Amino acid sequence: MVKAIEWFEDADGPAVRIIDQTVLPAIEVYLDLRTVDQLVDAIARLAVRGAPALGAAGGYGVVLAERQGTAEGWSADRLDAEIERVALARPTAVNLAWGARRVDAVRREGSGDTLAEAHRIAEQDEAANRDLSRAGADWLLERIGKRPLRALTHCNTGALATTAWGTAYGVLKELHARGALEFVYVDETRPLLQGTRLTSWELAKDGIPHVVEVDGAASSTILRGLVDFAVIGADRIAANGDTANKIGSVAVALAAHRAGIPFLVAAPLSTVDATLASGDLIEIEERDENEVLAFGGTQMSAPGVRGFNPAFDVTPHDLISGIVTEHGVVEPTVTQPAFA
Amino acid sequence: MVKAIEWFEDADGPAVRIIDQTVLPAIEVYLDLRTVDQLVDAIARLAVRGAPALGAAGGYGVVLAERQGTAEGWSADRLDAEIERVALARPTAVNLAWGARRVDAVRREGSGDTLAEAHRIAEQDEAANRDLSRAGADWLLERIGKRPLRALTHCNTGALATTAWGTAYGVLKELHARGALEFVYVDETRPLLQGTRLTSWELAKDGIPHVVEVDGAASSTILRGLVDFAVIGADRIAANGDTANKIGSVAVALAAHRAGIPFLVAAPLSTVDATLASGDLIEIEERDENEVLAFGGTQMSAPGVRGFNPAFDVTPHDLISGIVTEHGVVEPTVTQPAFA
Repeated sequence: MVKAIEWFEDADGPAVRIIDQTVLPAIEVYLDLRTVDQLVDAIARLAVRGAPALGAAGGYGVVLAERQGTAEGWSADRLDAEIERVALARPTAVNLAWGARRVDAVRREGSGDTLAEAHRIAEQDEAANRDLSRAGADWLLERIGKRPLRALTHCNTGALATTAWGTAYGVLKELHARGALEFVYVDETRPLLQGTRLTSWELAKDGIPHVVEVDGAASSTILRGLVDFAVIGADRIAANGDTANKIGSVAVALAAHRAGIPFLVAAPLSTVDATLASGDLIEIEERDENEVLAFGGTQMSAPGVRGFNPAFDVTPHDLISGIVTEHGVVEPTVTQPAFA
Repeated sequence: MVKAIEWFEDADGPAVRIIDQTVLPAIEVYLDLRTVDQLVDAIARLAVRGAPALGAAGGYGVVLAERQGTAEGWSADRLDAEIERVALARPTAVNLAWGARRVDAVRREGSGDTLAEAHRIAEQDEAANRDLSRAGADWLLERIGKRPLRALTHCNTGALATTAWGTAYGVLKELHARGALEFVYVDETRPLLQGTRLTSWELAKDGIPHVVEVDGAASSTILRGLVDFAVIGADRIAANGDTANKIGSVAVALAAHRAGIPFLVAAPLSTVDATLASGDLIEIEERDENEVLAFGGTQMSAPGVRGFNPAFDVTPHDLISGIVTEHGVVEPTVTQPAFA
């Protein structure tokens, strides 16, 4: 099975090994990131991405910084600063900083094994994903009478976005394993096409029937009654159940709400940021305008035209039917506040 | 000013002259379509597009078929069949068949001037666009206290989509001329990027400040309070005020409804199809899956992955604040049914 991120050591020393998601599915190439610079660059350009995978990247990043610091004789302040660079390489997914802080706490204690702690993050993520996938599938099958189910999903939340198995994608995989999944509509997920490039690649490998549609088609696919539910991942979940997800997600939520079908958010508990009272407080990453204006190196707009490129949007909790974590499903419209 | 479509004659005979919208903004090239085959192909591949421009294409198409039939000695049945091919070259925009039928009626009478009738369609479209733009601007300025206004639009509805001036774009242009337009958010409009390629090109020429965003960003741009209203065109309007618009439009309507800002549909009266009681009856064109899966000739998906490519969606009338035609604004939630 494909691994989005792993710890790796050879004669050249330690590395964070990732599959380069910027060139999938055309090219399957693994990159060994051996310095903090390389890791931060890979995170920034989305060679490794997905909130749960970024949790592992944060954890392994601390170990990588430690090893590089020892080899290069960094001061304590320098090491702290490099770890902070890893933790803040992208602003929206809370898991990145969470993973870094968790392993850094072990480092600061001085007596623990930071690599073991980073491995634990990865193992716990896989276990959490499997648990939440079962809970999400149970919840959907309880609520929807029809069999098998037709789903809509957005962005990529599979093995590539996590340490293994997947979150929203894991729910689909669990339904498929139970013979309860008929078909999946996959939003292409502009600007970087994680749906077209990554999710459809994983679905094809897993033998799950699906089509790719433009993001603008999601609302009418839902309103026309072509799907029974929508499921997506999350990059940060506020205490009141508002969620930050890949740009375009709130359009799916609005359409599902109007159509009266379940809109399920699937994420490990590490995605909850209980320090934020509501989604209004979540920092939304704005990325380079050329992700919007150019395509494969070709400028699509007239010269001088500017782009606006927020990478995430916020879905208010009243549009969310359920948030499933490894601890089960919370229904934000029923239980208020959800994670306080 | 750029002309999307014109009648043209030279030593080689008559032609429908269009600007090739598939290669804009990189290349500005005009095509002289001299046969029905060439015209039908240009319509099918969206070299000429936009509901009002297609009305003129239908009208001029009848004249072109008549001239080609005379030159090639077509039978009456053959001529009827070729005119029908023009009328049905695309299924969703009612204006195409409407323009063809209108000029064909003059042809069948035998005494009238078909070319003069086709020119009248073009002239009346421009006049209608200017009238509806004034009415739409008045209506918006009456309803929104803030000055100047920030707008969001989807697809292309400017001079390129019409015979001149524009519909939804025309409303923006009218507001700009009155000094009442601050800024425009333009949806890129996947899969064919009419927003990135065409609308931003027209806005730049007209000196109107704007940014291009992915279609998935529209909902959060609206929910975050970044715009004061949304305005789009229409390809067909049913008797009850349901409208068919470029895929992605209903997402804009849902977000505007939630945010409580006006969602205005701008189209000439020729876009109304009073024979259809509701939007459920509008035929939605499904286009080639490769428009979704490939980009500039590069396949973005894994081999064997399928695409779903509906070109339009339907916005239910209860999500529409106003429909502006050259006869003024109808408010479908107030006046029911709107066009019966």
